[in-house]
Amino acid sequence: MAAKTTYPHFVDPQDVDFTLRASISNLIAKTLNVAGVDADSKGFGIRELKPQNRSWVLSRMAIEISHRPSEYTPYNITTWVSDYGRAMSTRNFVLDCEGEVFGSATTQWSMIDFNTRRAVDLRYIAEHNDAVWAEEPPIERAGKLPAVDAEATTEHRVAYSDIDFNRHMNSLRYFDLMLDCLPLEILTEDRAVRIDINFLNETRYGQLLRIGYRNEGDRWEFEIATEDDTIACRTTFEWR
Amino acid sequence: MAAKTTYPHFVDPQDVDFTLRASISNLIAKTLNVAGVDADSKGFGIRELKPQNRSWVLSRMAIEISHRPSEYTPYNITTWVSDYGRAMSTRNFVLDCEGEVFGSATTQWSMIDFNTRRAVDLRYIAEHNDAVWAEEPPIERAGKLPAVDAEATTEHRVAYSDIDFNRHMNSLRYFDLMLDCLPLEILTEDRAVRIDINFLNETRYGQLLRIGYRNEGDRWEFEIATEDDTIACRTTFEWR
Repeated sequence: MAAKTTYPHFVDPQDVDFTLRASISNLIAKTLNVAGVDADSKGFGIRELKPQNRSWVLSRMAIEISHRPSEYTPYNITTWVSDYGRAMSTRNFVLDCEGEVFGSATTQWSMIDFNTRRAVDLRYIAEHNDAVWAEEPPIERAGKLPAVDAEATTEHRVAYSDIDFNRHMNSLRYFDLMLDCLPLEILTEDRAVRIDINFLNETRYGQLLRIGYRNEGDRWEFEIATEDDTIACRTTFEWR
Repeated sequence: MAAKTTYPHFVDPQDVDFTLRASISNLIAKTLNVAGVDADSKGFGIRELKPQNRSWVLSRMAIEISHRPSEYTPYNITTWVSDYGRAMSTRNFVLDCEGEVFGSATTQWSMIDFNTRRAVDLRYIAEHNDAVWAEEPPIERAGKLPAVDAEATTEHRVAYSDIDFNRHMNSLRYFDLMLDCLPLEILTEDRAVRIDINFLNETRYGQLLRIGYRNEGDRWEFEIATEDDTIACRTTFEWR
């Protein structure tokens, strides 16, 4: 059934960073959780797909956050699937506190069949088709990000606490790794930010990741790669 | 008001590890969250204490987990304050799925006054006194753990994603650091485990932590310390 659906949220103590506002990773985590819950509730989520040995894979995301809500603040995440092609579906999100929008996101997903390791043709997924609400994404979609000519790097070995049921790094952990590279001052101020992410390849338990980054003014570009130079993701943070 | 209170929970996809069961850290996180929510609801939680520049500090914890619930399983956490002295309060927890107990925990807390940097005399906190439910802890309290003669170590620098509002390492992150040192096989099997933790000193943003550990049979002892040998915590995992 075509619908925009709103999910109530609350900034709990475990959601905030040292500024006592919801952290960027936490807002992204909640947003992506809503994608899962909404797809499940409409009959095309991972709960339905798992027995068919299929799953959704997040390919690109853009999110703009004008300010981060404080601890104990109720807020809403509204989501809808705006459109899809053969291989890619676009899901959108608006985050608001009492009607005042403080965040907007748009994401592109493909559905993978683990038996064939190929993308499923979305045109034949009736529940997904029925859910489409033809309203444009609230912000520009994430573009294709170029390679990053890193001027600094850190390392991280993919550990137990990072992995999902496939023993792949949980995408959300990349945000922690990247945000941990930033000077604390950027995160102390509650500045507006746009983040563009391209997820390119999975990384696995035990792999050593290289987090390379480059900073010019308010722009930070990241590239996370494995030892054999497989690119896991590229991300741009643009502070405003 | 004296009461044991039960809080309903659910194992969401973001709560599980690669075995598709709630992770040990997640069960500990949920348990400690319940401590905060219950204390807040009874008028002696951190929401009340913050304006007075006071807070609860977790000193020791013991938890026994017989098995970990699977994704999409509802469960309950029941909590009560069993007793307290001048400086230390004991809060207990029982975790059950449809009445079948799978986890029990007992924790010891002191209340710190940040103005004086000293423990508050709990005998004068009326709301806390009124909440006591005189039922013994469900498991033996955590004892005082001795120094660990480490046979292996890893390192971790305290980063943005680790810290709380005081820019101290969030206690829950220690569990991730320790569990990440274990062979994946131990975490693959859903074995019963008892965990004893002593929290000794806070660690701060930017400090380099040394995670030392020692294994004998089913027993793993951990000690986390800073570069200047301040001990942050000691923990024993005893698999059964």
